[in-house]
Amino acid sequence: MHAPNGDHSDRAHLADHAADLVERLRARRPRVHCITNAVAQSFTANVLLAAGAIPSMTISPEEVAAFAARADALLVNLGTFDAERRDATEAALTQVVNERKPWVLDPVLIDRSPPRAAYARELSARRPSAVRLNEAEFITLADAAPPETFAMRHNTVAALTGASDVVTDGTRIARIGNGHPLMGRVTAMGCAASALVAAALAVESDSFKAVVAALLIFGIAGDIAGDAAKRQGSFGVHILDALFNLDRATIVARAKVTS
Amino acid sequence: MHAPNGDHSDRAHLADHAADLVERLRARRPRVHCITNAVAQSFTANVLLAAGAIPSMTISPEEVAAFAARADALLVNLGTFDAERRDATEAALTQVVNERKPWVLDPVLIDRSPPRAAYARELSARRPSAVRLNEAEFITLADAAPPETFAMRHNTVAALTGASDVVTDGTRIARIGNGHPLMGRVTAMGCAASALVAAALAVESDSFKAVVAALLIFGIAGDIAGDAAKRQGSFGVHILDALFNLDRATIVARAKVTS
Amino acid sequence: MHAPNGDHSDRAHLADHAADLVERLRARRPRVHCITNAVAQSFTANVLLAAGAIPSMTISPEEVAAFAARADALLVNLGTFDAERRDATEAALTQVVNERKPWVLDPVLIDRSPPRAAYARELSARRPSAVRLNEAEFITLADAAPPETFAMRHNTVAALTGASDVVTDGTRIARIGNGHPLMGRVTAMGCAASALVAAALAVESDSFKAVVAALLIFGIAGDIAGDAAKRQGSFGVHILDALFNLDRATIVARAKVTS
Repeated sequence: MHAPNGDHSDRAHLADHAADLVERLRARRPRVHCITNAVAQSFTANVLLAAGAIPSMTISPEEVAAFAARADALLVNLGTFDAERRDATEAALTQVVNERKPWVLDPVLIDRSPPRAAYARELSARRPSAVRLNEAEFITLADAAPPETFAMRHNTVAALTGASDVVTDGTRIARIGNGHPLMGRVTAMGCAASALVAAALAVESDSFKAVVAALLIFGIAGDIAGDAAKRQGSFGVHILDALFNLDRATIVARAKVTS
Repeated sequence: MHAPNGDHSDRAHLADHAADLVERLRARRPRVHCITNAVAQSFTANVLLAAGAIPSMTISPEEVAAFAARADALLVNLGTFDAERRDATEAALTQVVNERKPWVLDPVLIDRSPPRAAYARELSARRPSAVRLNEAEFITLADAAPPETFAMRHNTVAALTGASDVVTDGTRIARIGNGHPLMGRVTAMGCAASALVAAALAVESDSFKAVVAALLIFGIAGDIAGDAAKRQGSFGVHILDALFNLDRATIVARAKVTS
Repeated sequence: MHAPNGDHSDRAHLADHAADLVERLRARRPRVHCITNAVAQSFTANVLLAAGAIPSMTISPEEVAAFAARADALLVNLGTFDAERRDATEAALTQVVNERKPWVLDPVLIDRSPPRAAYARELSARRPSAVRLNEAEFITLADAAPPETFAMRHNTVAALTGASDVVTDGTRIARIGNGHPLMGRVTAMGCAASALVAAALAVESDSFKAVVAALLIFGIAGDIAGDAAKRQGSFGVHILDALFNLDRATIVARAKVTS
């Protein structure tokens, strides 16, 4: 009955944009090359496929450049830190940076491994389109800087996920309240979110808007899965179902986002 | 009421043979060693187990020959192309070819990686019992030859899967209309189909009949899963359930196959 | 109506202890580092998460010591036997043995690979807190010794799983009758059971009691999953749901265990 207030129209705008992005992913089917850890590969591939994107996953240094050249976006996930993956990352990044394609850094568990953290710092200096990580990882990476400062300094979008998500490019900031506690109890959930961010960046040139839309979609899929399944195994299946089935009306009704 | 026409009796014959093969897999439990990519390993293992076969998956060059020696069939999937897997493939193939055991080549995504395509051409000259692949992969591998010519030239069975499947050994040809569009939206579906072909070759010496039966079974399981689950995550679970539960009456009722 | 006999009170005691252990896992959330094969990684991580533990999985020799140092228990699964995993195992074991943390050996399929069997023998001389394996693997490892002798000689807990499970530390012995035949038809079930044993050892200092509780919990989850799902794909989902949802009353009602 009342005119929407600022927050509401903002929410509506961001929800609408997320719904647009879902449609674009399904229509354009972007190719996302993922250098990621073996634990996460299968679930990550299924999340991308559920959303409409097309994953590839080879980490072989001999051919990763060929895959990166044919991909629309790249994910570099540090869930395993080894010489082979560093070679693969170097080959893929060279390709992607030359062609100005988007890429996402996911510095998994750098708070548990100092050499991995050092490598993440190196990579974050190479202009990732976005960095998605949790709070402990962010503290390790950003050395006590707030997200806005980190984003500004690295010319990137910082996306901290947790009980609520914060996305910032240094000037804009969005907060997302969707998601479900079971997302922290299924392996590779964060890794898959980062892959979805990469897919979003392939179809939306405003990186901040792409990241917000991707995390909003993923959080809403988590909400829906949590409503359908109160247990861990089923939750992992239902979140794929929810992503596959997501429509504009559901996104608009469920979005909890402010900017 | 009418005498069955040629096509009908053909269909009935192929469906019956597929049902026989399901029973043989469950009774004999063939061992299938799979050199495959990490994305596909878990789902592939579960498809083999659901069908009654026993998977092994090591790619360690130090022991792959020991596993191949104890296996009844081998799958070589090129989903990751690296030096370690090439060494493993060489060791396993030497074993398998010496003992005249069946093996299947799955040249995954060779249309995206020239070095992988070159390696697939080398392997296809080493008399795989069957080559399972999609159309883009086949065009890259066969250099514009039709499937019958490719099969004849390489003394193999070519199995092109897609909206409908074509299987040929150069003289015989079968077309399978089963399957569901969601099979293209779950990771490792094609890789798992190739593993099932390898299992079938372990229990049926006529390679053409083995490949037709395996793909018919897999397509019917896909149909059943598609009826039960309209969404991506559930589909991946239901196709395993359907394979595990498949019986003769269902196969006979659902088979869409001509030769 | 009758006073409980010795067996009954025994059963009740072990069931109660298993229920305690479930609560401890959820409250303390132990970190379990797993050196395991790629087939098993995702399901193993999800089993640990469903039970309340926190998995890590890197096998990179460069950082595995850092992860082992921050973990509460270690799993060494020989599902793939290669130089990289041997290096990782050496680095992790050195850390874990120095700090007297528990570790579990799972000598997967050593009956199929002589070099893997030789390595398992080496490792079993390094005082694993427990060795979990099936009968064929045990025969290969123990060289015809009975489980009690093997456990005594290696100062470990031997846990043979199968249609029924036997757990012994050489002086005590327990038999567990829970579990479901479908557990043998889903990939990585044994690997995941070993990871759960490692998690249990992190929160229970009596290794024998820890192993009995972990296998009892896993078997009961299998029973519940088998009641809910008669088919293979769903079973893999339901066993995670059951683990996640397990409560004291269910454990006490369903436990089939004697010692």
